[in-house]
Amino acid sequence: MSTLTDTPVQPSRDELDLAAVLHALSDPVRLMMVRGLAEVAEGRSCGSFDVPVTKSTCTHHFKVLREAGVIQQRQEGTRRVNTLREEDLEARFPGLLGTILQAARDQLALTARA
Amino acid sequence: MSTLTDTPVQPSRDELDLAAVLHALSDPVRLMMVRGLAEVAEGRSCGSFDVPVTKSTCTHHFKVLREAGVIQQRQEGTRRVNTLREEDLEARFPGLLGTILQAARDQLALTARA
Repeated sequence: MSTLTDTPVQPSRDELDLAAVLHALSDPVRLMMVRGLAEVAEGRSCGSFDVPVTKSTCTHHFKVLREAGVIQQRQEGTRRVNTLREEDLEARFPGLLGTILQAARDQLALTARA
Repeated sequence: MSTLTDTPVQPSRDELDLAAVLHALSDPVRLMMVRGLAEVAEGRSCGSFDVPVTKSTCTHHFKVLREAGVIQQRQEGTRRVNTLREEDLEARFPGLLGTILQAARDQLALTARA
């Protein structure tokens, strides 16, 4: 009987580190996932993302995001549901997540037009 | 006779890539350098930074920043002078650099108080 899966390791709000957050967001697939999470307040599981990676890579990306404090994960039966830590990020680094998400949308729009 | 040192490779404004920019800024030493550059419009050389790394590591960090499009470099005699590409970054990703620099200052202030 393990409770580890119920409480995955993540930094507290005060422990959020800028370099770690930027590193977590510096991967195109993770940026795509975070954009997807920003649209769904109740959270999403790994399988619900249309990303060009295997499930285990997806799981790895979510671990990086969680350990940097960008997302939190909760277990719901067999699903691990991911949600953005928008309030914590906003409190620690005001405007950061919103600006990066907007930049990601701008870049996507530019790429789509090209 | 080489002109390579006069025109180091860097992406054009339209080629700036969000993930690459975030990756360049996801290192504590590079964040420190970019904070230093933001204060000096005329640019600074590697040797002028009070960072806890060797000159060759400093040179490497500036290369990462240049290749991501965060800075540009020009040769002045024996010195390579680095300046932030603030206008290009602002045009491509509005608010991004300013928000990250502010977050870096906030984190530094918080660390100093702790």
